[in-house]
Amino acid sequence: MKACRREPVDTTPVWLMRQAGRYMKEYRELRARVPFLDLCKSPDLVAEVTVSAAEKLGVDAAILFADLLLIVEPLGFELEYEKGEGPQVRPAIRRAPDLDRLREVEPDAFGYVFEGIRRTRAALKPELPLLGFAAAPFTLASYLIEGGGSRSYTRTKAFMYSDPGAWRALMEHLARNLAAYVRGQIEAGVQAVQIFDTWVGCLGPADYREFVLPWSRALFEALPREIPLIHFGTGTGTLLESMREAGGSVIGIDFHVELGEAWRRVGYDVAVQGNLDPSVLFADREVIRSRVERILHQAGGRPGHIFNLGHGILPDTPYDNVAALIDAVHELSCHPATL
Amino acid sequence: MKACRREPVDTTPVWLMRQAGRYMKEYRELRARVPFLDLCKSPDLVAEVTVSAAEKLGVDAAILFADLLLIVEPLGFELEYEKGEGPQVRPAIRRAPDLDRLREVEPDAFGYVFEGIRRTRAALKPELPLLGFAAAPFTLASYLIEGGGSRSYTRTKAFMYSDPGAWRALMEHLARNLAAYVRGQIEAGVQAVQIFDTWVGCLGPADYREFVLPWSRALFEALPREIPLIHFGTGTGTLLESMREAGGSVIGIDFHVELGEAWRRVGYDVAVQGNLDPSVLFADREVIRSRVERILHQAGGRPGHIFNLGHGILPDTPYDNVAALIDAVHELSCHPATL
Repeated sequence: MKACRREPVDTTPVWLMRQAGRYMKEYRELRARVPFLDLCKSPDLVAEVTVSAAEKLGVDAAILFADLLLIVEPLGFELEYEKGEGPQVRPAIRRAPDLDRLREVEPDAFGYVFEGIRRTRAALKPELPLLGFAAAPFTLASYLIEGGGSRSYTRTKAFMYSDPGAWRALMEHLARNLAAYVRGQIEAGVQAVQIFDTWVGCLGPADYREFVLPWSRALFEALPREIPLIHFGTGTGTLLESMREAGGSVIGIDFHVELGEAWRRVGYDVAVQGNLDPSVLFADREVIRSRVERILHQAGGRPGHIFNLGHGILPDTPYDNVAALIDAVHELSCHPATL
Repeated sequence: MKACRREPVDTTPVWLMRQAGRYMKEYRELRARVPFLDLCKSPDLVAEVTVSAAEKLGVDAAILFADLLLIVEPLGFELEYEKGEGPQVRPAIRRAPDLDRLREVEPDAFGYVFEGIRRTRAALKPELPLLGFAAAPFTLASYLIEGGGSRSYTRTKAFMYSDPGAWRALMEHLARNLAAYVRGQIEAGVQAVQIFDTWVGCLGPADYREFVLPWSRALFEALPREIPLIHFGTGTGTLLESMREAGGSVIGIDFHVELGEAWRRVGYDVAVQGNLDPSVLFADREVIRSRVERILHQAGGRPGHIFNLGHGILPDTPYDNVAALIDAVHELSCHPATL
């Protein structure tokens, strides 16, 4: 929390995107019994998974176990995870008239998420902050239009280029409803929120400014200013300044950019989070350690750096390497003289 | 050819990556009869596909119809395209001892490619240049290590981080053999060559400089200086200066960067190629036209711009939109006053 506010800290705080996930034995065992969406919808299991991952790893924040796409159901879509596949969202939005199907989210549609937050907060050590999260409007729109993940986001782009009016209406609807969802998470007890514009890196800078920035900004502006908001996306090497302009008191940096250079570009009046390449966790510990050192060196001991990966932990990552990473961040950052 | 040398031209030349491909009816009909690798290995069919696509579209260059991975067979690997899947390379390189399997490419292993070049050159209008192409060492290494495509290139990175000595040996082997392959293409009659470092955008700038640049440079330096060499990759928004340093008289720009800004960054003493987002070809013609106009405007009429997409044509692209794109580039660029 201090790092989010750019206040000095003793050691650089660290948490990891997808820190509760398949790379962890306990999680795999639970998932062998409980399907993914059932797990997301059980407040008790959410609390268990969230708390046990954070405490086992010894990280400095817990992130609520949830799915980025839980909001699509109350928006009027079906959500399904087929075995081994990514999410499927049906029926996908293909043409402007499909927007008539969009619903306003009812506040109690997220009862299970908010209850999961309350139980997690009650079970979590008081000194560990709990992060909530949600998609940014573009990333959510891409799932609704593609009907799932995509390599090229062609349908999303074609929709946006061909019918800018319908695109604006969609983005406005999503920004408004995402804001309500995030405000609900904050009321339920999360202390900070990460906004994932995971796939926005498929766009160039001019498209970002025209088709994304206004609605990401609308989302950030609809959220309380006193709560730290982390704004993250992947492949955003050419978008960072614009993302910063859209909002967030912490900018999440992916691994395609050097952290030092990225911080200079977004400005030292925001905090930054990042940015170890998750693939480094497949190398040996000396490599991990030297990469951590490099990132800490680039952050230069300046207040306002939260250590994280540049994207989520990969499913086959060796657990011991993740534990070694957390140790390395804590150990190397509390002796700045060695940097 | 003039644009490659940054000499003034009447209209901006244009060709498209994968201009002979699935989006074209004639190609689909041929492929219904002939498997992909058989097509690549038939000099007559290569000439037919290469020439007919270029002449039908009215583009300003033909690019040899071939596969980026033809070189893996003479290097000692099996290459297979299963229906609807990407390439499969077997057995993949997993550990340093696997490098013992790497062979030096025999000059006559590419007899069918070079014969395809000669027949294409003979069939092609004399004023149309013929481009050859090859992978850059990193992209080729990634296929050999992953055994095919990948989303995260984790195996490639883990190999490179964990055993830098073995990585150097691999990259050196690939750079040397790729250079021999490209020199053979030039001797057979291609007038310019594109080096595809398609997947190098999975790396950050420091990794690029340490693990890629020296061997990409070795490849470029082993090629004749009088032949235009186009150096292209995707997701390279943070790598452009380093790629330029590695080599190439033309830098291929993908669509995640604004072309004007990219050219400023790589320097006006190289030509640039790009960079329309291939997804724009799914929008209507006015959108295509306005996007072409924006790119031409960014190039600013400066000699040394070759129009292209920022990545290959997508398989479902409507043919008429591709034709409209070519027309738009020629029409809009020959009246610079309207820019």
